[in-house]
Amino acid sequence: MNTKVREIRLRVVTLLTDFGLRDAYVAQMKAVILSICPEAQIVDITHQVERFNISMGALILAQSAPLFPEGTVHVAVVDPGVGTGRRPIVVATRRSLLVGPDNGLLAVAAEREGVEHVYHITNKRVMRAEVSSTFHGRDVFAPAAAHLARGLRPEEVGEEVKDYVRLSFEPAHVAGGVATLRILYVDSFGNAVTNLGYEAFSSFGVRFGEELVVDWRRGRVRALYSPAYFPEGRILLVRGSQGLMELSLGRGSLADRLGAGAGDVLTIRRAESCR
Amino acid sequence: MNTKVREIRLRVVTLLTDFGLRDAYVAQMKAVILSICPEAQIVDITHQVERFNISMGALILAQSAPLFPEGTVHVAVVDPGVGTGRRPIVVATRRSLLVGPDNGLLAVAAEREGVEHVYHITNKRVMRAEVSSTFHGRDVFAPAAAHLARGLRPEEVGEEVKDYVRLSFEPAHVAGGVATLRILYVDSFGNAVTNLGYEAFSSFGVRFGEELVVDWRRGRVRALYSPAYFPEGRILLVRGSQGLMELSLGRGSLADRLGAGAGDVLTIRRAESCR
Amino acid sequence: MNTKVREIRLRVVTLLTDFGLRDAYVAQMKAVILSICPEAQIVDITHQVERFNISMGALILAQSAPLFPEGTVHVAVVDPGVGTGRRPIVVATRRSLLVGPDNGLLAVAAEREGVEHVYHITNKRVMRAEVSSTFHGRDVFAPAAAHLARGLRPEEVGEEVKDYVRLSFEPAHVAGGVATLRILYVDSFGNAVTNLGYEAFSSFGVRFGEELVVDWRRGRVRALYSPAYFPEGRILLVRGSQGLMELSLGRGSLADRLGAGAGDVLTIRRAESCR
Repeated sequence: MNTKVREIRLRVVTLLTDFGLRDAYVAQMKAVILSICPEAQIVDITHQVERFNISMGALILAQSAPLFPEGTVHVAVVDPGVGTGRRPIVVATRRSLLVGPDNGLLAVAAEREGVEHVYHITNKRVMRAEVSSTFHGRDVFAPAAAHLARGLRPEEVGEEVKDYVRLSFEPAHVAGGVATLRILYVDSFGNAVTNLGYEAFSSFGVRFGEELVVDWRRGRVRALYSPAYFPEGRILLVRGSQGLMELSLGRGSLADRLGAGAGDVLTIRRAESCR
Repeated sequence: MNTKVREIRLRVVTLLTDFGLRDAYVAQMKAVILSICPEAQIVDITHQVERFNISMGALILAQSAPLFPEGTVHVAVVDPGVGTGRRPIVVATRRSLLVGPDNGLLAVAAEREGVEHVYHITNKRVMRAEVSSTFHGRDVFAPAAAHLARGLRPEEVGEEVKDYVRLSFEPAHVAGGVATLRILYVDSFGNAVTNLGYEAFSSFGVRFGEELVVDWRRGRVRALYSPAYFPEGRILLVRGSQGLMELSLGRGSLADRLGAGAGDVLTIRRAESCR
Repeated sequence: MNTKVREIRLRVVTLLTDFGLRDAYVAQMKAVILSICPEAQIVDITHQVERFNISMGALILAQSAPLFPEGTVHVAVVDPGVGTGRRPIVVATRRSLLVGPDNGLLAVAAEREGVEHVYHITNKRVMRAEVSSTFHGRDVFAPAAAHLARGLRPEEVGEEVKDYVRLSFEPAHVAGGVATLRILYVDSFGNAVTNLGYEAFSSFGVRFGEELVVDWRRGRVRALYSPAYFPEGRILLVRGSQGLMELSLGRGSLADRLGAGAGDVLTIRRAESCR
């Protein structure tokens, strides 16, 4: 039984793209994968990454990949450089295989899981017979992933490379009781996920129910430190489920209310310290 | 062969949430499920419940759950009270297991399938090691469901409870040839699904092609009782596929045309009876 | 091992509809399929076909179906005529089974794969016990597909028919160095997929980097023939991944920039030939 479970585990293949779900693109990738590896258990991470937004894709992949079973093959395609010189790569981490363009998209997940080797996909036998210049998701990444899911060793896709493209999310700066932080991402609830980790924030010693002062270019607001997304209508600072502090509006959209968006820089300090 | 089929049937796990498909949330739930139960066959019911709209989620779950194979585990998360005192529960019905918050979301499906027992999820061994205060979908409901899909008996998740939160959709009132009804739900085609069941409506003795008079706060219209969504451009009363009467616009959106929405109250009577 | 792989291959069932993913409709279809054929591996092609847009559905199905494993069962439902006299059919092609309404939706994929037989679904035993007049996706097409996925021979669904509804996408007209073409489809990136095949276009002898003159009712623009979607900001003519020429805007939406849409007629010629 154990062996069988392990075998099934090795065949999970996830997909993350900016293709949306309206066109045939995602279906074509799945068709290619199932044709090569009928046992693949395909899971969509998301296909709604903002078009060409590599950072957003990298962040969602890094949030998701480490929770999947060991041996999962992750295919990610946010690929503005398709058809140019950017390399197709496979990153072998300590627990999974990441397949996609060498543009930083895989890098945050890779670093989080622990990079072991990176390979440049050049072996024609893991690609479709005819490779288009515009859709490597279907013609290169999907078939390579399917071969890996079937048991191909990653070193068989091509030569090892050392200089792959990295991408990092700088953590917030915390000094003198002030955190200077950036909004990484606004989720679909309108919560602003910041680069302030809970560990760093906890050095402030703030307790639930205490107010914090938030300053940014559009003004100053007060946010209540709360264990969850309540009370309704209040601006909140919440320890998000991703380990990062979030600014939120109780039962509403903070992004809509404050016009806050990815990239905005804020400072946060305890209310008593700024009188 | 029979045994194998039964085994596979027991491992269907469905998901219904208001998370949307853009962020990592749904993928994280799937990752947790597959890590615990690699044989799970995960099916998305929908992730586009309107944010925090428990009634809408409850209705879609009740429409879907009874059609799935016996033994299916349904996970539903529309959970404005996450992080507050609301209980995480498992409802064992006559044909399936429903996992989610005790806020009414599971109740309509549960009543339709026949409730046998309700359990409060308190056993830490069916949760993730660290439970966030904001994402029980990933940390409580998904792992509990995966353990159930693997064969855990529902009574092992925690103590039985008797006073779980109910939610009911009152049926339409029919008297003296007039039905007073409410729009439960506008589907994505713009059809208004009402709380008037086909059984109750059939007591009117209306035939296809007959006109009915529909009154509501915005005025009066005439609707043709039709077997399907035609003719084009006409306001129609149709026996919907869910067993409920629907108001529809032939090849158009009734909701757009009349500005009708969930919660609107209408009366319907035969045209001859209101001259 | 070979036998097992083949068995799994026979059980892929794809879905393509205009139902969207918000309501219970798609979930109900999946529930019906899994109840009849628990081994089905269900893959969504798309559920975001524009409502009642049969041509769009037919095109996406034709782009996707030929890439799936042999023996796949494809269910497609874009069905404005549900409840009227249009027939439910199964098309057996050289490599797959297509299930849906006889309104042209299946025809382009069918012709591309090679039609062998078409059957009118009339056998009540492959339908749900009660067939609604408005949702054949759940009550006729899904159960028929599930029975086929389990091994039912297509001739068992009903009588063979010869006069099924065809639908063809006329190829572009190329003469005297001028191609007169039509936009078939605007994808979600805003690329305009045309009916000009790469084979026909290549008779022009155009090289990468050369400009072409594009005329249509709203005016004249110049498009650069490029191997991929760059440079940024330029109007491009690109050999699309579907074998059809596309008009595109480098890292932007051509449809938004030019107001181009499905059905627009254009001419394309080499710049030197029109001075």
